[in-house]
Amino acid sequence: MVNLNSNYDRLKAGYLFLGIASRTQTFLELNPGVEVMRLGIGNTILPLPPAVIEGLHLGVEKLSRIDTYTGYGDEQGDERLRKAIAERYFQRGVVVDPSEVFVSDGAKPDSANIQSLFAIDNVVAFQDPAYPVYVDTNVIAGRENFVYMPCTQDNGFFPDFPERRADLIYLCSPNNPTGAVATREQLKKFVDYAKAIKSVIIFDSAYEAFIRNPDLPRTIYEVKGAKDCAIEINSFSKAAGFTGVRLGWAVVPYDLMDGRLNEMWNRRQTTFFNGASNIAQEGGLAVLTKQGWAECQKIVDYYMENAGIIKQGVASAGLKVFGGENAPYLWVQTPDKMLSWDFFDKLLREARVVCTPGVGFGPSGEGYVRLSAFGIRENIERAVESIKDNLKIN
Amino acid sequence: MVNLNSNYDRLKAGYLFLGIASRTQTFLELNPGVEVMRLGIGNTILPLPPAVIEGLHLGVEKLSRIDTYTGYGDEQGDERLRKAIAERYFQRGVVVDPSEVFVSDGAKPDSANIQSLFAIDNVVAFQDPAYPVYVDTNVIAGRENFVYMPCTQDNGFFPDFPERRADLIYLCSPNNPTGAVATREQLKKFVDYAKAIKSVIIFDSAYEAFIRNPDLPRTIYEVKGAKDCAIEINSFSKAAGFTGVRLGWAVVPYDLMDGRLNEMWNRRQTTFFNGASNIAQEGGLAVLTKQGWAECQKIVDYYMENAGIIKQGVASAGLKVFGGENAPYLWVQTPDKMLSWDFFDKLLREARVVCTPGVGFGPSGEGYVRLSAFGIRENIERAVESIKDNLKIN
Repeated sequence: MVNLNSNYDRLKAGYLFLGIASRTQTFLELNPGVEVMRLGIGNTILPLPPAVIEGLHLGVEKLSRIDTYTGYGDEQGDERLRKAIAERYFQRGVVVDPSEVFVSDGAKPDSANIQSLFAIDNVVAFQDPAYPVYVDTNVIAGRENFVYMPCTQDNGFFPDFPERRADLIYLCSPNNPTGAVATREQLKKFVDYAKAIKSVIIFDSAYEAFIRNPDLPRTIYEVKGAKDCAIEINSFSKAAGFTGVRLGWAVVPYDLMDGRLNEMWNRRQTTFFNGASNIAQEGGLAVLTKQGWAECQKIVDYYMENAGIIKQGVASAGLKVFGGENAPYLWVQTPDKMLSWDFFDKLLREARVVCTPGVGFGPSGEGYVRLSAFGIRENIERAVESIKDNLKIN
Repeated sequence: MVNLNSNYDRLKAGYLFLGIASRTQTFLELNPGVEVMRLGIGNTILPLPPAVIEGLHLGVEKLSRIDTYTGYGDEQGDERLRKAIAERYFQRGVVVDPSEVFVSDGAKPDSANIQSLFAIDNVVAFQDPAYPVYVDTNVIAGRENFVYMPCTQDNGFFPDFPERRADLIYLCSPNNPTGAVATREQLKKFVDYAKAIKSVIIFDSAYEAFIRNPDLPRTIYEVKGAKDCAIEINSFSKAAGFTGVRLGWAVVPYDLMDGRLNEMWNRRQTTFFNGASNIAQEGGLAVLTKQGWAECQKIVDYYMENAGIIKQGVASAGLKVFGGENAPYLWVQTPDKMLSWDFFDKLLREARVVCTPGVGFGPSGEGYVRLSAFGIRENIERAVESIKDNLKIN
């Protein structure tokens, strides 16, 4: 008789966004005709710009002719795209070899799968709060030795070293959900720490394109020594609106464990994965042209203007708000130490605005909610006005 | 200090197709100016037909307008596509609920990842020879209790029950590499066996579109009781030339372990995966229209005519050949009990044709090579003529 992977039973029940959907649904049923405004989910909503659309059409067009048709591509990605990504690093003064870049179908799969290179008995450190995928995938794999690194107002939402020596350390900057961005000094401390105890950092920089402050690092490899200890995961999802198109990449440096991790990830990808869609990759190449990048940046600018509007509005409504300056997320402290879900209900009831309860990202998220800047300007403005006009704060 | 997943060290070194590439390269260097003909790799080469290209362009076009743009889709797949796939089953008299269909980025990832639902201590049975991904992914996951089911001329390349009671059983039909197709009776025996001992069958039907004989089952669910014991994996890769576009699906029936496997696969996909590309899915919908399917079938017909040409030619050259009637693969016995790699060298040297050594798929593949029907007609004909004219068989 077949036995199941019992680690699934150890997962926390209920997915955050299902809880949000069901409470919102209940509210709508109790209040027919009322319209709610969503500042909750981190999903892109603006169409792709012309240069990128053209690149994607080209990708399709190529499949229509025998001389340009391609079947299976390299699992590691189209050589042209690996080079173009390496060149983007080079422009920031970071040398990455194209063969250290592994193109994938997104940052979520990569950040979910990367743990499979490591033994089950490692101690794993997570930021708290954090993107739930990091913990859940480690639970499913059978790991149990977890240490949480609280990110609070006291530490500016960037964690101190884990309480116990950790073998694997997940860091996300710009951070989902807090919107905090690590400084070069903060990253350097972690790089030095990881090198000293021979740990590996999994650095998720999927929101890098939202960094406005030129002094903030856009890749962990801007920190000297990071190539000895860090894998970086990034994505076209938020920078280029590819959330549905599916394209991302991981950098696994040769310096890391004498090339062994690069070799293992290569084996992992060639065995479990069959490459990102050739159409998506042609689109990714268009994103990384001068024209494509400029067009995508305009969309990022738009979202960041949204973030500014939310930040200002929510603050003037009397709430304490963090993030939103170099990230599309705002981290709002609930008034009067309200619980996240209670404030979710209050915001929905009084202002008809849907947010994301911070506690859904971990215990240190309790007492916060996340607002997202991914929305149409008009809706964002209406939501903010409604919060200012209708939310009752003592 | 971080520890690595030591199961990677247990993988057999060297990837089959790298070995082929390197021997071919050496041959070309020693014989400058000589052209080789490739009958080796199972990769589509014909362009996509008009209706499918139109569907893919539509997918791109939708992303260019705010009212049709989509970001993250359901990890399980676009509801329309899940329905369209379920309808295809229905046309064959098989009832599959759309929520039992999980759209993915291909049959390789699904057949690689499905093992993660099961405990490490299960006994796993594989056909020998088989697609190397089944074994490799189980090795990487840490499983050690394997039982191989030889597929030989004696059993018509469909295996007998495993020697030891197996908890998980991988079956592939139409088979890669042997080109054999299981009959309804053969599948029924395995379904009854699996149900009796509460095992789960992983049924890979990625080459289903190549079945010409209407009496052969195109899905394991044509066998009564299969929904109680089998997961089926299929793909748009070979049926519609989507090898590079990336689109497939798994059916995980509710009847299987009281719905628990459906629930677990849902949790797995929502945690590790972020959906197939929305452009690929729009293309998949076009494939499943009447017009799209008819156009794709013409391409399949073309490949199957290739298979017929190869089969006839290779047989008339004096070789014993199997498969190629309901599958794009031909399984050729080497003359005089030659080893697979020796015959590979002989075929390359004498006929300048590249094949795939059967032993690369498992010990029972020794003494065979695989030929593939995925090629341009003219090249196929030239390769076959060259084998007939130049291969020296006693």
